[in-house]
Amino acid sequence: NRRGATSNLSKLISKTHPADMAWVFRHLTKDERTAVFNIIGESEFVGEFLSELDDAFVIELVKELDPPSMAEILSDMPSDDAVDLLEILPEDLADTIREHMKKKDREEVDELMQYHPESAGGLMSPDFMYLDEELTAGDAINVIQNRGEDKEMVFYLYITHGDRKLSGVISLRELLLHPAEQKLKEIMNPNVISVSTDTERGEVAHVVSQYNILAVPVVDSNYTLVGIVTVDDIIDVIREEATEEFLQMAGAGKDREILLKSTKESAFIRAPWLFASWIGGIVTMFVIGSFEHELAKVIALASFIPIVTGMGGNIAVQSSTIVVRGIATGRINMNEAYKVVFKEIRVGIILGLVYGTVLGVVAFLGFAEPPLLGVVVGGAILSSMVMSAFVGTSIPLIFKRFDIDAAIATGPFVTTSIDILSTLLYLWFAKIFLNL
Amino acid sequence: NRRGATSNLSKLISKTHPADMAWVFRHLTKDERTAVFNIIGESEFVGEFLSELDDAFVIELVKELDPPSMAEILSDMPSDDAVDLLEILPEDLADTIREHMKKKDREEVDELMQYHPESAGGLMSPDFMYLDEELTAGDAINVIQNRGEDKEMVFYLYITHGDRKLSGVISLRELLLHPAEQKLKEIMNPNVISVSTDTERGEVAHVVSQYNILAVPVVDSNYTLVGIVTVDDIIDVIREEATEEFLQMAGAGKDREILLKSTKESAFIRAPWLFASWIGGIVTMFVIGSFEHELAKVIALASFIPIVTGMGGNIAVQSSTIVVRGIATGRINMNEAYKVVFKEIRVGIILGLVYGTVLGVVAFLGFAEPPLLGVVVGGAILSSMVMSAFVGTSIPLIFKRFDIDAAIATGPFVTTSIDILSTLLYLWFAKIFLNL
Repeated sequence: NRRGATSNLSKLISKTHPADMAWVFRHLTKDERTAVFNIIGESEFVGEFLSELDDAFVIELVKELDPPSMAEILSDMPSDDAVDLLEILPEDLADTIREHMKKKDREEVDELMQYHPESAGGLMSPDFMYLDEELTAGDAINVIQNRGEDKEMVFYLYITHGDRKLSGVISLRELLLHPAEQKLKEIMNPNVISVSTDTERGEVAHVVSQYNILAVPVVDSNYTLVGIVTVDDIIDVIREEATEEFLQMAGAGKDREILLKSTKESAFIRAPWLFASWIGGIVTMFVIGSFEHELAKVIALASFIPIVTGMGGNIAVQSSTIVVRGIATGRINMNEAYKVVFKEIRVGIILGLVYGTVLGVVAFLGFAEPPLLGVVVGGAILSSMVMSAFVGTSIPLIFKRFDIDAAIATGPFVTTSIDILSTLLYLWFAKIFLNL
Repeated sequence: NRRGATSNLSKLISKTHPADMAWVFRHLTKDERTAVFNIIGESEFVGEFLSELDDAFVIELVKELDPPSMAEILSDMPSDDAVDLLEILPEDLADTIREHMKKKDREEVDELMQYHPESAGGLMSPDFMYLDEELTAGDAINVIQNRGEDKEMVFYLYITHGDRKLSGVISLRELLLHPAEQKLKEIMNPNVISVSTDTERGEVAHVVSQYNILAVPVVDSNYTLVGIVTVDDIIDVIREEATEEFLQMAGAGKDREILLKSTKESAFIRAPWLFASWIGGIVTMFVIGSFEHELAKVIALASFIPIVTGMGGNIAVQSSTIVVRGIATGRINMNEAYKVVFKEIRVGIILGLVYGTVLGVVAFLGFAEPPLLGVVVGGAILSSMVMSAFVGTSIPLIFKRFDIDAAIATGPFVTTSIDILSTLLYLWFAKIFLNL
């Protein structure tokens, strides 16, 4: 019977971790999602569940709730998670929900919403543990015992002076090693690594992973401690940035949830990037058209167009992927970018010689007619691969120099320009060497 | 003077975080690297520095040190980092160094080396804090105060029973909230999330990020606690796996340090993947050659080959990137993979109709001669894009089904098969509709 089924479902849900429930949600139908959320919505885990859930589902579910009960759920969530949730909702719905929140909670949320979502300010939690440097180790332990409940990352205690100015850090374990009467300012580590509210989130991720820390304090322009970014949020940032980079390089937009989008939305997101290659294709069409006279004389020339553009395109994608990832992981020093370009050109020469020679031989053996066809095809492969390695390396480096995201340069732009240039090079070679 | 310069350099180095030194190293010449390492080698940070350094530099530097002093450096390092370092060295050099290590350290290292480097056993640290469940909270704090120095992640205390069988976990903060006389087994959380020594490292990363935890305990087949994997290592795993995925999808191998490799090594790593597209190019060449008769009649047909293969290739790369990343981030349920395939086909139909129509019109307006050329070209774009969306989606899903890494399927294999199939489709269309 129905009631029994619901109660079994309730039991199952109450035993499942909210993060796992969010995972399972991806594989339910809309009706199932509504039924399950009716149960989760009553539980104390609803906030945690919503903050783990994919944006598309959050929007779907929140629209069905009335704003006052949603405001209540948000009030119980850590305020940084509440802000993340409000930011994905349509603006008018978010405003209505905010108006139903208690004044104190709303002010906390408004405070955080002033920061850009992709900055340290947008990532940070304001519920952290800080202690004045004049307190003693014993006082500190008392404070933790009384107040630590709702704070994030209580394993690092940030020490402040005056009006919450950051002065140092001490770990909970270090605190335990000192006599109760010692002052925090005597035992803290004053060399505390911090970021500013407007530090870009990729840079925050870099700091946390570079120094192997579990959280980083965030200060405003007056060096006042305003929040902390914890390592679990950093992991999400690293994952999300990698996914965006992948999609951008494939010319598929940067919507991480593209798999959850409808067919029409997915087509709409991807269409503009295909337009770039469509334009490139038209240009290549005209390039080939302008050599119609030469092609008519040696029809075999047409057979080699795809292999020349293909080999060029592939080495260009190799080069640009290596460069884009090198920029993202900090392995490329922009002041020595020319070294990378020269090296890729040398790699292009080696690979072009190898594949140009073998293709030249194939062409010579396969097509007896214009005896120099092998030379033309081999030479075209060599020059196209060298040119492609150069273009594939340079485009992302130039974009980066002008502070444009290097990932978007790689996919459609690189392969399209290689198609045009390789075709031009090859047919021009043919015209000259075959005296057409 | 030289001595003054060295002493200034020493000062600078001693003020720089070892992780930052490792970063700087990428931009030094070989001579500079040797000079700087002569100073770092004397400092207490040498172990931390080496474990942050790129593999290629580690090998270069360690080869110049004598094995006994290298053995000493390793003995001072956390044993998981020591193992990571030994595993990148040539086997005979690693063996010589191991023989110089103290028996106890060597045994610890040998213990860890039995695990696969890409498993939880290969990632874990054996220097963690565990306490028997019969101890009291007060005992536990004493143990931490006396023994916590060299342990990793003392913020989580793992609780065991009998012969180190995992029974629960408690955080250091929770420990402080309980009276000193309470037994750990009464206050611990018995629902502890753990992984097994042979859990694949990507799965370990998934567990840690899914549950937002700072470390996960590793148990052997008897549920004996043998180590922990900390979140900083997980961040490295996520970064490394993303970089490998990028390179594989571009057909550029999976060596994360390819930028540090010589020109010849880089060409060697990339050559095999280009061979796949070279073979594809030869096949395409024969496909076009077999339509020589038709091309000779309507030379304009050749002009459209690149745009047909290009549009197909681009939508295929979009589809396969979305699928590969969807598999990597757990957004694709393999039991419902057919849904993804159907959706991508629908996207292919929409985009194929749009771009096929506009290209058909361009062809009709640009080339008066065979009046049906527009229909042929438009139809070829449509069918090529639908077919490409299908192939681009299916290949990674099929690879995944056979437990082959989906990333390697994307780059060269997909684009090469699309080149062949699109050309064939297009020329076959032309032959039929134009009655050639």
